[in-house]
This record gives sequence, C-alpha cells and structure tokens, in this order.
Amino acid sequence: MPMRELAFQDQGSVHHCHGCGAANDKGLRLKSYWDGDEAVAKWQAEPHHCGGTRENLNGGIIASLIDCHSLNLAIARAYRAEQRPIGSPPRIGYVTGNLNISYIKPTPLHETIELRARVEKLEGRKVWVSCTLSAAGEVRARGEVLGVRVEWK
Amino acid sequence: MPMRELAFQDQGSVHHCHGCGAANDKGLRLKSYWDGDEAVAKWQAEPHHCGGTRENLNGGIIASLIDCHSLNLAIARAYRAEQRPIGSPPRIGYVTGNLNISYIKPTPLHETIELRARVEKLEGRKVWVSCTLSAAGEVRARGEVLGVRVEWK
Repeated sequence: MPMRELAFQDQGSVHHCHGCGAANDKGLRLKSYWDGDEAVAKWQAEPHHCGGTRENLNGGIIASLIDCHSLNLAIARAYRAEQRPIGSPPRIGYVTGNLNISYIKPTPLHETIELRARVEKLEGRKVWVSCTLSAAGEVRARGEVLGVRVEWK
Repeated sequence: MPMRELAFQDQGSVHHCHGCGAANDKGLRLKSYWDGDEAVAKWQAEPHHCGGTRENLNGGIIASLIDCHSLNLAIARAYRAEQRPIGSPPRIGYVTGNLNISYIKPTPLHETIELRARVEKLEGRKVWVSCTLSAAGEVRARGEVLGVRVEWK
C-alpha cells in the first residue's frame, strides 16, 4: 500500500485557521488531499456541531468546511502550477471574496462528511471553485467560492 | 434605565445550535435582539476563531454568525406576526436554503462584532434576509440569506 501524501494543511497551506489549521486545537482541522485535479476531504462532526436540531450538522459549519476546502484547493493548485511544494517560500495565500452555499437537504450529524472541490475558472488573482458536501452517499450542500490571491506574510 | 428584553435565543427561538443555541456551551452563543423591525447582535471572538492569519476572524465563523442572526430574525418576525411570544407552541422554525456572503475587508479578531439584519421579502414559506457584519465602525461582510419555514418538533 503506497504511503498517502500529507494533507495540504499538514504541508503548510495554512496554520491557525479555525476551519482547517493543523495548529488550531479548538478548530475543525479539516484535511484536504489531491484526487487527480480535484480535492477531497473527509470529516467527522462532534455533537456540539449540530444545527437547529441535534441530529443535523449546523449550516455555518457546512459553510466553514466548504470555504476552507475550496481555498485549500486554490492554494494547492497555485503551488502545483509553479512546481513548488505546498508551503514553500514565497508563501501563496488566498482569501474568500464570495461564498455561496445552497443547502439541498439536511446533513446527518453522525455520518462521515465528504467534500469534493474543483477549480472552475481562473482569471488573474481570482479563482472560482465549486464544492459539494455529501453524507451517506447524497449531496447535502453545494458551494461556489470566489478566492482572491494575496501576498501572505 | 429600562430592563432589556431577552435575546431571541434566550426566549427559545433555538436551543442547541452551534452558532446561537443558549444550551450549547461549545458553540458561538450569538444573542440577537429587536431594534425596531431589524435585529441586532454584538459578539466577541476568541483567539481560536481566527482565519488565515491570527489577527482576523475566520470566514466560516462570519458565515455562521450571519446565518444564525438572519434566521433568528426570520423566526422572531414570524412569532411577532402571530402576536405570540418567541418559543411558544406550536414552535416556528426556519432552515437555510441559500447563504451568500460577500467578504468586503478583513474583520479584526479583537474588535466587537456587530450584526444588523432585516427582512427584505416574504413569499409563502420563504423569507429573504439581508445582514451586515461590522467591526470598528466599518462593514466587513454582507450576507443574503434565504430561509424556509419548517414544522419544528
């Protein structure tokens, strides 16, 4: 069995972010990986991540996961385009310009969440990423994320 | 000085929600209040709510706050229209159908966050709410939230 590559976040795409920073022990610690030209992630909620009912995942957490997963793909893609390892200097950062989430059906809290994102369009500093969030084999939410490349310190 | 009314969430608009449930001690515990026909809220982030840098608020947390504040206004408005106290049976619930957030400028983590939401349109079970998120006197993000009324158990 081949050794799995490190997640984007564990290679240094981001550090402290509440949604996906490996160094944030009170955050969601999402881990995103390449799957061809797309990015995939799996994530498991805890009971306090519930929404209006205790059985379903909170919509704000869904937005967080889609936002972080999509921007991590944008960052990873930019490093790949420059044929550099993720996190290598000079650092590449993206910030969210717009986040549009459609909630299709409730997301059960106790199922494993699966995210899949792909780059739809690139234009100068801007990138448009689409992302689905699935659980128990069904798409529960779809997101469109506009990311803007920034100089990162 | 008049006694301030209870927050929507403390009257029972929601209970366990990660974004605003009063009974969720690991959640954000947002508190929303009437200001005329609009809803207002103030909220203070903790250090682990940071985004790509430790100085700025995470975009997913911003989405959570806008989502919860907007749906709480939708719920409070529906009770008011029926001339009933918030949380009284039969319970009124709203779920998010679509959430669209524009991030205008970074939100400093250590400033008090201010939210202001208003109902833009009502049509059958649907409600459209607009919401601004401000800090240090400037609007940092704007949201448009489509809420759908549901039968709540």
